[in-house]
Amino acid sequence: MANKRIGIWLIGAKGGVATTTIVGLTTLKKGLIGSAGLVSQLPQFESLDLADWADMVVGGHEIRDVSLIGEATKLVTESHTASQEWIDQCRDELEQIDRRIRPGCLLNVGQTIEDLAAAEVPRDASPRAAVKRLREDLDQFVRSEQLDRLVVVNVASTEPPADPASIPPQWSKMEPMLDDPQCPLPASSLYAIAALESGHAYVNFTPSLGSSPAAIDELARLRGTCHIGRDGKTGETLMKSVLAPMFARRNLRIMSWVGHNIFGNMDGKVLKDPDNKRAKVDSKDHLIHEILGYRPQTHVSIEYIESLGDWKTAWDHVHFTGFLGVPMSLQFTWQGCDSVLAAPLVLDLTRFTDLAARRGQTGELTFLASFFKSPQGVDEHCFDRQFQMLEQWAEGMKNDE
Amino acid sequence: MANKRIGIWLIGAKGGVATTTIVGLTTLKKGLIGSAGLVSQLPQFESLDLADWADMVVGGHEIRDVSLIGEATKLVTESHTASQEWIDQCRDELEQIDRRIRPGCLLNVGQTIEDLAAAEVPRDASPRAAVKRLREDLDQFVRSEQLDRLVVVNVASTEPPADPASIPPQWSKMEPMLDDPQCPLPASSLYAIAALESGHAYVNFTPSLGSSPAAIDELARLRGTCHIGRDGKTGETLMKSVLAPMFARRNLRIMSWVGHNIFGNMDGKVLKDPDNKRAKVDSKDHLIHEILGYRPQTHVSIEYIESLGDWKTAWDHVHFTGFLGVPMSLQFTWQGCDSVLAAPLVLDLTRFTDLAARRGQTGELTFLASFFKSPQGVDEHCFDRQFQMLEQWAEGMKNDE
Amino acid sequence: MANKRIGIWLIGAKGGVATTTIVGLTTLKKGLIGSAGLVSQLPQFESLDLADWADMVVGGHEIRDVSLIGEATKLVTESHTASQEWIDQCRDELEQIDRRIRPGCLLNVGQTIEDLAAAEVPRDASPRAAVKRLREDLDQFVRSEQLDRLVVVNVASTEPPADPASIPPQWSKMEPMLDDPQCPLPASSLYAIAALESGHAYVNFTPSLGSSPAAIDELARLRGTCHIGRDGKTGETLMKSVLAPMFARRNLRIMSWVGHNIFGNMDGKVLKDPDNKRAKVDSKDHLIHEILGYRPQTHVSIEYIESLGDWKTAWDHVHFTGFLGVPMSLQFTWQGCDSVLAAPLVLDLTRFTDLAARRGQTGELTFLASFFKSPQGVDEHCFDRQFQMLEQWAEGMKNDE
Amino acid sequence: MANKRIGIWLIGAKGGVATTTIVGLTTLKKGLIGSAGLVSQLPQFESLDLADWADMVVGGHEIRDVSLIGEATKLVTESHTASQEWIDQCRDELEQIDRRIRPGCLLNVGQTIEDLAAAEVPRDASPRAAVKRLREDLDQFVRSEQLDRLVVVNVASTEPPADPASIPPQWSKMEPMLDDPQCPLPASSLYAIAALESGHAYVNFTPSLGSSPAAIDELARLRGTCHIGRDGKTGETLMKSVLAPMFARRNLRIMSWVGHNIFGNMDGKVLKDPDNKRAKVDSKDHLIHEILGYRPQTHVSIEYIESLGDWKTAWDHVHFTGFLGVPMSLQFTWQGCDSVLAAPLVLDLTRFTDLAARRGQTGELTFLASFFKSPQGVDEHCFDRQFQMLEQWAEGMKNDE
Repeated sequence: MANKRIGIWLIGAKGGVATTTIVGLTTLKKGLIGSAGLVSQLPQFESLDLADWADMVVGGHEIRDVSLIGEATKLVTESHTASQEWIDQCRDELEQIDRRIRPGCLLNVGQTIEDLAAAEVPRDASPRAAVKRLREDLDQFVRSEQLDRLVVVNVASTEPPADPASIPPQWSKMEPMLDDPQCPLPASSLYAIAALESGHAYVNFTPSLGSSPAAIDELARLRGTCHIGRDGKTGETLMKSVLAPMFARRNLRIMSWVGHNIFGNMDGKVLKDPDNKRAKVDSKDHLIHEILGYRPQTHVSIEYIESLGDWKTAWDHVHFTGFLGVPMSLQFTWQGCDSVLAAPLVLDLTRFTDLAARRGQTGELTFLASFFKSPQGVDEHCFDRQFQMLEQWAEGMKNDE
Repeated sequence: MANKRIGIWLIGAKGGVATTTIVGLTTLKKGLIGSAGLVSQLPQFESLDLADWADMVVGGHEIRDVSLIGEATKLVTESHTASQEWIDQCRDELEQIDRRIRPGCLLNVGQTIEDLAAAEVPRDASPRAAVKRLREDLDQFVRSEQLDRLVVVNVASTEPPADPASIPPQWSKMEPMLDDPQCPLPASSLYAIAALESGHAYVNFTPSLGSSPAAIDELARLRGTCHIGRDGKTGETLMKSVLAPMFARRNLRIMSWVGHNIFGNMDGKVLKDPDNKRAKVDSKDHLIHEILGYRPQTHVSIEYIESLGDWKTAWDHVHFTGFLGVPMSLQFTWQGCDSVLAAPLVLDLTRFTDLAARRGQTGELTFLASFFKSPQGVDEHCFDRQFQMLEQWAEGMKNDE
Repeated sequence: MANKRIGIWLIGAKGGVATTTIVGLTTLKKGLIGSAGLVSQLPQFESLDLADWADMVVGGHEIRDVSLIGEATKLVTESHTASQEWIDQCRDELEQIDRRIRPGCLLNVGQTIEDLAAAEVPRDASPRAAVKRLREDLDQFVRSEQLDRLVVVNVASTEPPADPASIPPQWSKMEPMLDDPQCPLPASSLYAIAALESGHAYVNFTPSLGSSPAAIDELARLRGTCHIGRDGKTGETLMKSVLAPMFARRNLRIMSWVGHNIFGNMDGKVLKDPDNKRAKVDSKDHLIHEILGYRPQTHVSIEYIESLGDWKTAWDHVHFTGFLGVPMSLQFTWQGCDSVLAAPLVLDLTRFTDLAARRGQTGELTFLASFFKSPQGVDEHCFDRQFQMLEQWAEGMKNDE
Repeated sequence: MANKRIGIWLIGAKGGVATTTIVGLTTLKKGLIGSAGLVSQLPQFESLDLADWADMVVGGHEIRDVSLIGEATKLVTESHTASQEWIDQCRDELEQIDRRIRPGCLLNVGQTIEDLAAAEVPRDASPRAAVKRLREDLDQFVRSEQLDRLVVVNVASTEPPADPASIPPQWSKMEPMLDDPQCPLPASSLYAIAALESGHAYVNFTPSLGSSPAAIDELARLRGTCHIGRDGKTGETLMKSVLAPMFARRNLRIMSWVGHNIFGNMDGKVLKDPDNKRAKVDSKDHLIHEILGYRPQTHVSIEYIESLGDWKTAWDHVHFTGFLGVPMSLQFTWQGCDSVLAAPLVLDLTRFTDLAARRGQTGELTFLASFFKSPQGVDEHCFDRQFQMLEQWAEGMKNDE
């Protein structure tokens, strides 16, 4: 039943994560690459009725004036994560996808992101006007590609945090605000509203607000569709979510946990703006005390170091107390390519979300917690226990069939 | 029902782990230290009927000619893990314990360990004679201290590995071998046999053979008692048992995993002997491929660096492949004090084992897998899932009451 | 001829560096410790007529209300850098020194330092009044201790940077400003003026302004005395001053150099104030491009992590380009105790400065460049070449005799 | 006067270092790459009359049956240190060079290297026969390429160490041994003899014996030519030669220095043989105590980890004592590509050696000490002071002109 056409609509469609996702999907379709990094290809999910790569079609929104081929070529020349040969073989597909990418929305994205925008990107008069325009883009994509289902995934740059007090908890209160040009909802939430209103699934891979307000969850349930987020867990925070439980279960008391992240991609450039950075740091930091149940001193820094490009180096220093009150330490250095870590998870989330949607699941897809730094609707932050939620869901899906 | 007298009999009773265990238990009794490092003090085990510190009495076997006070003082002057004040306050207790420590057994411990032995340590004529002598020591301890129960814990130096082909799988085959002076069973197994024959529980915190042969498990069941082992999981391997599952569940393919361990304690000195080292390296290394299901290149080295004393530094380098076949890496540096990491686990294992024994559990206590590098009778090597086995057992114990 | 009484007057006399210096000097006098860390004890300086430890007498200024014995005891209980036995044996000497410590000066030290000050510390009405008071303290010390010579060493917390435009380059212009209560000169410079006016030598071990203005150098020459500074080079920056030359001489092009420093001592607390931090970061950062001759991206962060106490951990990441434009990297982690690294250099600087003063050297003692992050009057930042300046000076001194 | 044709004859001409040297020289000639990594391109050597890239011609000896184009392509596909575009543009030159490469010599290279050899490589009947054959190859190269001068550089795999007692110190004693098929001289020394006999210069970039015997130095002087070696200093040991002096000059006492090297190139494969490894470890280790003047515990390990290819990761842990006897530590991780670090030094050594030869220098070129782990004829191991020897030589050369 899965061999129908499934759309993936990427918000930030020519950013590093999206471009890597697109190159990855296209090379997967051609059998040029293996399954490394793809969770949905693990043996325990083998018998699930997940969508085939061949049935997936990509479109998206983007605010910058760049070409997808150009961005894909940077994976070869700057990040050294793809080969020129692949780009050459996938040229037609990349050009097709590029033609499907529509101008994004700039409401409440913050000055730093606005500065990156092309002149052609429309300045929407109100949130309502924006949602209307975005829905039309989605409808058009579904129609012209004859899609059976659509999953919208936000992989755009991090927005400044919204003031939670300004966000009402009910959809009936939020809905009228869309007419107010001063409405504090950021673009990430407007994309979510546009997707869910039209009955599509929505996944927020970023720390931006997205679908996290209760009012938007309510909308999803009203429309009979599903969503999840927030902030893909790919590197340093993934490490935290396996190491903090280890310390907790051994009763080793953490005194301080310092994380220093350096990298030089677009994400890093946007995070140089302290407003945008705040959202990210919070998302990387909170799980430590949620796992431990107490609050050690923590510090997360993120610095834009141009020479590193998309290669992030994270150095963490954990200072802890053992038996007899003896202080000890753990340091780690994680050297990974952010886009390469994130892209397969975008594909995995699309497949799992699509299956859940087909099976009629609505609201927050909490079984996807292991993919996120701040999983919506879930208090469990231990990676392994989050992963068991995914495995148990998969068991349920199999029995369902 | 727990407030009865429980004996802990330590094999290697004046080594670093044992001395730290003894100083820890004595300072716990006096309320001088907190609960850091003690798993059995976690909230999820709070309502279990575990033995009180006050009810625990220590004795043991040792082969070296050193004083317990002297070894405890080294914790102050060399490892800086204890304060002189504690030693002063615990002097009487330490001297009492020292008087209960009896000469150990040297059969098949290897030349390096034999070279450390005091002249007074008896050279047992046969395994049978050794077992008899060791049992008399245990019986005498139980009698004179009026103990209700006894747990024997092996924290002695690592023996060279025994040839598995030489060890019969049934107790009826092994038992007669005890008369043979050429019998390949090492001291660690003879201590196990002595303990189990007398109906006491046995825990093997070292990579030595101990109670791991099926024949000795059979003996435990025959005598209605329990045992577990092998090789306490305290530092680098603990890290492996949380990190390897993380890579596996994200489908990140490990190409190579290199671990370099440097430290300068007695354990390190014994491991300079390649025979003794082999047992340790195997125990530190095997779980990687058992967790992953494939065999990346692995390398474990252990070097004796005198200046580090009991402070171990482990540097690990993990080289892995992500999406698009992109290679990435993780490095970590673990700086911990081995004895301080191990000692609380010795106390935890004693308490959990004692409770299981009271409740009539026999044979291998597989629910204790999370404490060991090579848990007997258990294939699961993911630390978190092993820990859930402990939590589930504790739930069962509570319902039992 | 060196066996005369030499005074060391410490500004910040009960801070971590001063306390360690005092405990170190006192234990050296008693033969309790060896020569590790003392540059002046190296063979190449053996035949110099340097002052004996026995001839050195300590006094100082301090603004906090703490006892020297109390601070010395923290070396035992918090930093684990001294033994209680030493403190017990040195109790009389420490109490004597404490009685010689006088209230310091708070002019332009910034809010964060002011907040640490005891109520008794006088609020000087003008820089002139402050200088007068400080000179009286020095005179009184010289008189009562019958000193032949005096070296004043600033080891107080880092002040916020002064605006260079507000500091006149001639002494004749600066001198009248001392009457102006709005005069921008910070305490570190007033101590320098007080010392030099009275003909004593002055050493600035901190990044504060101290004697660095040309006008104060002029004063030193007018009074026939000498001075040097600025900012003792003890750890991460010492590493930079040997590694940056290595990259330069191999024509390996540095793209970025990131340094992340974490520690939890008083210095760290003061540096939490962004004003005070700015002076420090500049001092740690500038030498990279001065050594290389071009400006790679650099980033220095300093974070106060309480659990680390006086133990600083610095993680540096150097990203560089080699032949064929290939990017490579070096990371290092320095784990040192700041006070323990600094204290012997304070003693070395006192001895070398005292000898130079005896031999009639005036103005900036540029041969001491290797001790400082920002050596006054010296452009050479390669540690080894700076050290050769010291060796050549020593050769000259020997020939002089 | 430098614009004459200079030959570089590479021993191990298709190994990683040689291939990178050849690709580097060819791309330099075409202006495709910059000067990073080339010492001879530093400003302080700008006015020297060094050979132009355009005037350099490459030939060499090799024992394996591989093509130069194939090995160069591995730089693109495996090490990611060159671009396919360069290889395409340099194809003609690489093929020309490949045609000039002659079969090497296998005498006393050890079993591991012999196993790599192609069937066509002649098994020379005696050292004398080998030297004769090698000289003919050199003569033929000089003639056919109409070279004015020739520098022979050994970049072949490390041979097992020769027994020093078996090597006579005079040429008159060594020369007759060439007829003895049991003569212990390894190939590296026979290449040296061949080069020097013919009046060419010889540089030994490896830890093999090469020209280090006094008898071979005598030969060089007899023939009026020059030579130098031993073992290019490119990464971990370069770091040691700047860090050990830092510790020494600060009187920080090193207790232990541990270095762990992992990499997966041909060099690593050869070093898996313990015989070959011994020579390398000695060369990496000895300079520590020669710089310090005392012998801390040191440990160097080298492990072949296939997944790393030519990318070496070295982790070093330095444990040292400071003032008051306080122990501290430095760790570093060096991640570099060995061939890319070595290749420019091969070009530099050729240029400097060629100039020295033109100016009539004979015997050991000690001014090149900074390039070597074990510089022949030089006791100074501090990198910066070695580099000053090079700068002083350059000054002399300029004044000469």
